[in-house]
Amino acid sequence: MKKEVKVWAPATVANLNVGFDSLGCALSNPGEEMILRRTSAKGVVRVKAVHGAELDLDPKRNIAAVAAQSLLTAMGNPCGIEMEIFKEIMPGSGIGSSAASAAAAAVAANELLGAGLRPNELLPFALDGEQLASGARHADNVAPALLGGLVFCPPIGAPISLPIPMDWHLLVMHPQIEVKTADSRSVLPRTVPFDAAVLQARWMGAFISACHRDDSEQAMLALEDLLVEPHRQDLIPHFKEVKQLALSSGALVGGISGSGPSTFWICKDRENSETVAKAFRSFIVGKDTPFHLHHSQISAQGAHVVA
Amino acid sequence: MKKEVKVWAPATVANLNVGFDSLGCALSNPGEEMILRRTSAKGVVRVKAVHGAELDLDPKRNIAAVAAQSLLTAMGNPCGIEMEIFKEIMPGSGIGSSAASAAAAAVAANELLGAGLRPNELLPFALDGEQLASGARHADNVAPALLGGLVFCPPIGAPISLPIPMDWHLLVMHPQIEVKTADSRSVLPRTVPFDAAVLQARWMGAFISACHRDDSEQAMLALEDLLVEPHRQDLIPHFKEVKQLALSSGALVGGISGSGPSTFWICKDRENSETVAKAFRSFIVGKDTPFHLHHSQISAQGAHVVA
Repeated sequence: MKKEVKVWAPATVANLNVGFDSLGCALSNPGEEMILRRTSAKGVVRVKAVHGAELDLDPKRNIAAVAAQSLLTAMGNPCGIEMEIFKEIMPGSGIGSSAASAAAAAVAANELLGAGLRPNELLPFALDGEQLASGARHADNVAPALLGGLVFCPPIGAPISLPIPMDWHLLVMHPQIEVKTADSRSVLPRTVPFDAAVLQARWMGAFISACHRDDSEQAMLALEDLLVEPHRQDLIPHFKEVKQLALSSGALVGGISGSGPSTFWICKDRENSETVAKAFRSFIVGKDTPFHLHHSQISAQGAHVVA
Repeated sequence: MKKEVKVWAPATVANLNVGFDSLGCALSNPGEEMILRRTSAKGVVRVKAVHGAELDLDPKRNIAAVAAQSLLTAMGNPCGIEMEIFKEIMPGSGIGSSAASAAAAAVAANELLGAGLRPNELLPFALDGEQLASGARHADNVAPALLGGLVFCPPIGAPISLPIPMDWHLLVMHPQIEVKTADSRSVLPRTVPFDAAVLQARWMGAFISACHRDDSEQAMLALEDLLVEPHRQDLIPHFKEVKQLALSSGALVGGISGSGPSTFWICKDRENSETVAKAFRSFIVGKDTPFHLHHSQISAQGAHVVA
């Protein structure tokens, strides 16, 4: 039995325009680490420290601790767990900060306790953590954080790993403001035009089919969002200008990551991604809101043990 | 060069609940035949006879003639065409009567003229015919009538042939009433709940993914219709009773075929399909509306030359 486990978990982009509440992908960057240690206090989870962000240390109100506690309890509390969290993905960034914590904790606890569960079997425990953050058991961030790659969550049944478009270079732009999930939900309309609903379903079908056929280009073309972006874009600082700038600099498509404020922009290669980043940096000069930029591809690996 | 060509074209079920205006499959039964003959009157299409239904013989107002004329014109009018149509799929039945005519005519003219076009290349010509019937260039019936199998029409680009769930036995129930396309469109709502739109897209994604993964059972489970059936069911005689009867007799899922009035019911084997048919026949006794029943599977073949 290991006494200490270190894991890495990826940031994730949920929705990807076309799949509100059901699609997400794992990023190769950023990601974050977490260390779990065995203690003798059976059934007790303690958050020793959180580095890089101010998070609640109370294990009942800490996402990672709730996920770890859930698995610990399911395993019959053979020991206790002490956690040390190295937060690299800013809470409220819209790139799955809480999902990464929940996934990392589940994977680390699984290893520490020798539970032997597979990533998809860890989903319920990670969702126990995610639920604390979002109030809902949406798996569109947690599933890719656990499984890696590109994941579709059907209305019933297990998440489905789709073939990964390996040639997508994602540039994530993160304005340093907080968009509260409650606000991002409240701007959504109660009804949408019938034709938009029909068309959105067709884009979803086109995307899923293109992925299964390994047609990365058609998959990209299908990243349309008729339902959400029109209503959420006003919550994102300078969204329209950023979008215009990204597309005119060579990004192929992009949109709001999860509920924002981060946006993602898909480029055909790293060079193109650098060009868009350069345009963003010029644009940011003199603006009130500072931004972080992340260059990433889709990570085939989800949360996993690194030591 | 052939002087005479005989083709067969399948009936089709469009929408399949989950894919309004974008999904359709070809049926092995019923289908219909059409004979085209070369004439010396260059560029002239003549409808010699229609057997089995009263259709307009004016080539400008006959679906098959319009499709044949479109291809004939594109080929530079090397000859004329005389058509004889054996109508087995009742117009207005909701199982792609006009699409079968349009597809049959395109395939027959292609062979007669030695045009050498592939089925997907014949789509624009067949759509010229279909447009006469429906006023729109929807390919959800025409594409499977031409290509056979199970076909998804994305918002842009060519129709996509999906792997066929070979174990679906479809029972089609056709009440002998006419539902006008205009009526079936007018009952549709202008808006739908946001949550229903999101969920419908997820079911579409689940269906397309299941087909690509050859998971016939999951595909069937995804045949959900939150957008259309609730509004169209009142146009179908006894729809709720028929549905209840079908499901309680062992049909696994089903719904309205295209814009109706036909309904389709998917069973696990032919025996089960016979059981449901027997229940339907008992139910029909004493009702005002006569019904036709068709036992079918998905036809891998679309419209094709038989002589």
